[in-house]
Amino acid sequence: MSSFERERVIRFSDCDPAGIVFYPQYFVMFNGLVEDWFNEELEVGYRKLLIERKVGLPTVRLEADFKAVSQMGDQVKLSLSLERLGRQSLTLNLRCTGANNELRMSVRQVIVTTSLNGHHAIEIPTDLRIALMRFDEKTLESL
Amino acid sequence: MSSFERERVIRFSDCDPAGIVFYPQYFVMFNGLVEDWFNEELEVGYRKLLIERKVGLPTVRLEADFKAVSQMGDQVKLSLSLERLGRQSLTLNLRCTGANNELRMSVRQVIVTTSLNGHHAIEIPTDLRIALMRFDEKTLESL
Amino acid sequence: MSSFERERVIRFSDCDPAGIVFYPQYFVMFNGLVEDWFNEELEVGYRKLLIERKVGLPTVRLEADFKAVSQMGDQVKLSLSLERLGRQSLTLNLRCTGANNELRMSVRQVIVTTSLNGHHAIEIPTDLRIALMRFDEKTLESL
Amino acid sequence: MSSFERERVIRFSDCDPAGIVFYPQYFVMFNGLVEDWFNEELEVGYRKLLIERKVGLPTVRLEADFKAVSQMGDQVKLSLSLERLGRQSLTLNLRCTGANNELRMSVRQVIVTTSLNGHHAIEIPTDLRIALMRFDEKTLESL
Repeated sequence: MSSFERERVIRFSDCDPAGIVFYPQYFVMFNGLVEDWFNEELEVGYRKLLIERKVGLPTVRLEADFKAVSQMGDQVKLSLSLERLGRQSLTLNLRCTGANNELRMSVRQVIVTTSLNGHHAIEIPTDLRIALMRFDEKTLESL
Repeated sequence: MSSFERERVIRFSDCDPAGIVFYPQYFVMFNGLVEDWFNEELEVGYRKLLIERKVGLPTVRLEADFKAVSQMGDQVKLSLSLERLGRQSLTLNLRCTGANNELRMSVRQVIVTTSLNGHHAIEIPTDLRIALMRFDEKTLESL
Repeated sequence: MSSFERERVIRFSDCDPAGIVFYPQYFVMFNGLVEDWFNEELEVGYRKLLIERKVGLPTVRLEADFKAVSQMGDQVKLSLSLERLGRQSLTLNLRCTGANNELRMSVRQVIVTTSLNGHHAIEIPTDLRIALMRFDEKTLESL
Repeated sequence: MSSFERERVIRFSDCDPAGIVFYPQYFVMFNGLVEDWFNEELEVGYRKLLIERKVGLPTVRLEADFKAVSQMGDQVKLSLSLERLGRQSLTLNLRCTGANNELRMSVRQVIVTTSLNGHHAIEIPTDLRIALMRFDEKTLESL
């Protein structure tokens, strides 16, 4: 399956007094990955979407499994694939892997598109849907 | 079912450019709730456990459902109950509710006890187990 | 001099792999103190000011001195006094102290009032100015 | 004067409900810059220094001036130069600039080297001093 990937180093500021990633920080990292995916792969400007077009992307469901710890200085790979494209939602599979592709943790995340005027769900905007279908097509082609 | 509860105001620093809680921040808030639960209810010092006794409390599994947004200035209640007490793990149910007890989001979280020398799972220390059973007893009594 | 004070515990999430407060976190704590000061002492709603009235409170100058470390679990006192009230700015003295009033760190912070439509400086709104002068009066009375 | 520089995009998670960088986040960004400087330019492993060699790098003095706001999606440049090299301390000049080199904010920061066993100041370790002098030499050469 095709995926969008970025490398990142685990920083001092990501870690807790136990010397390992403080787990909420994984979700901050993945939020950055989704931003990059929108801007660089889908080419639907993330800032423009939120600030000018007033489309929100809140998370409604999250399942995460933590398999191994990440430590300060670790080089990790964050990756994302699209599991499902709904009318008002998308389901992502997110993974953080370390050296030798060892799985650190994975997340299944359901995001809905909302209007930031009132925070109610709206249909996925057409340009975003087209971009997501094109990304998904790559997925099909890569099978 | 008995639960441990704390009130908290949603702060400017908890919120994102959409003006609502940035969802990883909920997990930071719940981490604080667990700290207070250890210190004030279980009376097993959280700092001492981690720093002196070198016992870690990493999360291995997390399921979260987000039902309604929380905004800067909202007074929320964070609550915690114990779903399951295992040999090396505990399963918590965590909830954030707003005015009129409206559910904002809920989490089911599995925490394991580990040695911070190597990050492998260990049995729940006896004093912690006793305190958890006592908390659970309250649960039974409150049925 | 009169001051506004709040107690707070240093949390796991405030601390870094060295086991002490990660210093940017002090500024997050003080931002919370300023919020409480606006809401509880000045009675100028912080959320309303920013979101409805579109008045920003950015920092333009900061001087901080760090004297002693704060560790997870420490009970600290955060305090604030008004050093100077300008036409478009206020200068605050902020302090974090530990047990026995030991100074952990102090900050001198200049905040300006801005319009959030364009981020340019504006005069301090009248109700805020009156509240600040009243707070200052207490300062004078307490001399 | 020679400097160490890195580019970075301003992320959703860096920003506050006013849609601009929440100022403590600048210090988190600069901490990452210092990490990169140690690892990539000075070649004194940051993680190794803290975790294995138990050398801390706390900030003792900070002066910051904020000139213009940074918004989500902005591409910024973070830069660092060494102002002074003392026996137990170093003084850094840090700058964040936006498009067209517009200054967003600048910091003068004094860092001391400490033993993480007790948090008292120690002399800058020899390998770090040599690396800093070599970096400074580049500064001299670039005059």
